[in-house]
Amino acid sequence: AIVADRDLPPFDRVMMDGYAIRHADLQSGQRFTVRGEALAGAARKTLSDAPLTAMAVMTGAPRPHGADTVVRIEATQRVGGDLVITKPDSIAHGDFVHRRGSDKKSGSLLVEVGQTLRSVEIGIAASAGYADLRVSVRPRLVAIGTGDEMVPVEVVPEAHQIRRSNAAAVMAALGPLPAQVSPPVHLNDCVETETHRLEQAVSCHDVVIISGAVSKGRLDWIPHALDRIGQCLFHGVAQRPGKPMGVWQTESGTVIFALPGNPVSTLVGAHRHLRPWLCKAMGLTFPVQWVGLATDFSNPSPLTLFCPVRRKADGTAEPVAINNSGDYAALSCSDGFIELPDGQNHWTAGESVAFYPWI
Amino acid sequence: AIVADRDLPPFDRVMMDGYAIRHADLQSGQRFTVRGEALAGAARKTLSDAPLTAMAVMTGAPRPHGADTVVRIEATQRVGGDLVITKPDSIAHGDFVHRRGSDKKSGSLLVEVGQTLRSVEIGIAASAGYADLRVSVRPRLVAIGTGDEMVPVEVVPEAHQIRRSNAAAVMAALGPLPAQVSPPVHLNDCVETETHRLEQAVSCHDVVIISGAVSKGRLDWIPHALDRIGQCLFHGVAQRPGKPMGVWQTESGTVIFALPGNPVSTLVGAHRHLRPWLCKAMGLTFPVQWVGLATDFSNPSPLTLFCPVRRKADGTAEPVAINNSGDYAALSCSDGFIELPDGQNHWTAGESVAFYPWI
Repeated sequence: AIVADRDLPPFDRVMMDGYAIRHADLQSGQRFTVRGEALAGAARKTLSDAPLTAMAVMTGAPRPHGADTVVRIEATQRVGGDLVITKPDSIAHGDFVHRRGSDKKSGSLLVEVGQTLRSVEIGIAASAGYADLRVSVRPRLVAIGTGDEMVPVEVVPEAHQIRRSNAAAVMAALGPLPAQVSPPVHLNDCVETETHRLEQAVSCHDVVIISGAVSKGRLDWIPHALDRIGQCLFHGVAQRPGKPMGVWQTESGTVIFALPGNPVSTLVGAHRHLRPWLCKAMGLTFPVQWVGLATDFSNPSPLTLFCPVRRKADGTAEPVAINNSGDYAALSCSDGFIELPDGQNHWTAGESVAFYPWI
Repeated sequence: AIVADRDLPPFDRVMMDGYAIRHADLQSGQRFTVRGEALAGAARKTLSDAPLTAMAVMTGAPRPHGADTVVRIEATQRVGGDLVITKPDSIAHGDFVHRRGSDKKSGSLLVEVGQTLRSVEIGIAASAGYADLRVSVRPRLVAIGTGDEMVPVEVVPEAHQIRRSNAAAVMAALGPLPAQVSPPVHLNDCVETETHRLEQAVSCHDVVIISGAVSKGRLDWIPHALDRIGQCLFHGVAQRPGKPMGVWQTESGTVIFALPGNPVSTLVGAHRHLRPWLCKAMGLTFPVQWVGLATDFSNPSPLTLFCPVRRKADGTAEPVAINNSGDYAALSCSDGFIELPDGQNHWTAGESVAFYPWI
């Protein structure tokens, strides 16, 4: 917790450049003799006892002893060597003095434990002398790609091969979150050797995101391997793309997201499920955005449909055609995707739906 | 620019686990002999010429030579050693084959120069073999605090001193942006020595954010110093807090934001002016958020008013009381601030206004 080590403000702080006076003196006149100057950063000064004396003061200086009111420079004129307060009736006792402790008293709780440190809290912490802060550790994350057909990005693939792009895309989607993201891992389809590597990756991370080998085919070895590493929370979601998605959790608390390997399925899963959950787990807010539809939409399937869209100039969403969940190149023309929940088949232009922008 | 180095997909890609067949064979029967297996990552196979032969295929494998259609495993049964396609009439020629080049042809432009690299584009770049990307340099930023009364965070202040918190708060507000942020600089009020240090900071950064000494008082030396370093674009904005704010630009293009030193003024200026401009300058979008008012608001002044608010459970904004622009400790109870533009004096509960969340 961050606690005030002093009153806030810590002294009667001058709020404007001008002149410090005794307010009662205004009953005797409006022409003052200026003696001395109080600057920010200098020790507190004392106003002369002589009647109708003012001291020049700067914003941030401590109110001089003996003075109770600050008159802004704009409300004064210099006449000869003297100071004339132009409208004495408009000056109230205590004007432009930010009273010691009027914001917070010394010992007050300023920032509670568990609060997110925004710029506001960083400023408060600095002002209260907290040069070091004790914070929650950032979760350790790793993205894992799978598949014998995937070669490293810098390799020229054989005709039947493609390059490893999913783990890089997942890492990019995670990038802006306050997490410790390890270099990506790639697993081949050899269950014997790769199960051990999967276990190693799980053991030293808090969150593991796997792309591919998660469906129910003979070579989809990930669900079976995860069943031995942890507990399956669910496997299969009534959505398209991304139906074979599952989540597992180990005894030590590591959460494993297994996303289908089609690039669009992986990206949609990372944005629709992984990021909101991660934000919530880290105590961050994840405000779902809403968007108006530019055209009618339909979803004849019994599954929730995620549909890539482009935001038009008026902010509404229009569909971006993609061939199938392997057609990731078409996504670059889209701003994100909308969610068309199951149970409703038709949407009319102007209706609002949830929108997930690509990160 | 990122260009496809191969057709996308690069081969006729099997889209489902199942069996590859010749579609014409369905006219002779629905019972097939299974011979061979095509896996993702293995070189392309050839389907036997014998009539009514099928090959087991896995998602991601190249379509075997001689086969033209994939039947999903769910649409088949194994009877004895044979494969029976349960509803042959429902199988269309070319089913579940993602045709080579049907998404993009080799040589197609995939990502234009100047586009922001989201996860989508990172995935596209990786798949096209771009292990290294040429990107725009991140701007070099520095936050500068001012004032003799400000001591380092780890120092116990004298009665008339306060700690340096503004530069730290500005840096925290910039943190999530893709910029190179230098350690903060502090300048005292000695114009002679500090002008040189200011010039140095300006010379090696693209964006400089100064907090304090920017008003029109005798010790507000920043505007005069900046007038000699660059051109004043404006100085003074009809807003509260933050009226003395100004922006200067040097001949070499460095932009200097000078914000008033009150903590609330500095934070509001960083969120309301600096961040939107920075996002735009970096080619990022800065979508202004809108919020409904929970209560009536008024702004009797001729200035645009920025008012700290808390978001209620229903998303509407209610005011958070602060004493003045020095009362930064109260901001921790707020979620951000709303903008009440000049020219309108009253707002009714339910009206929408622009909302800037604290970063």
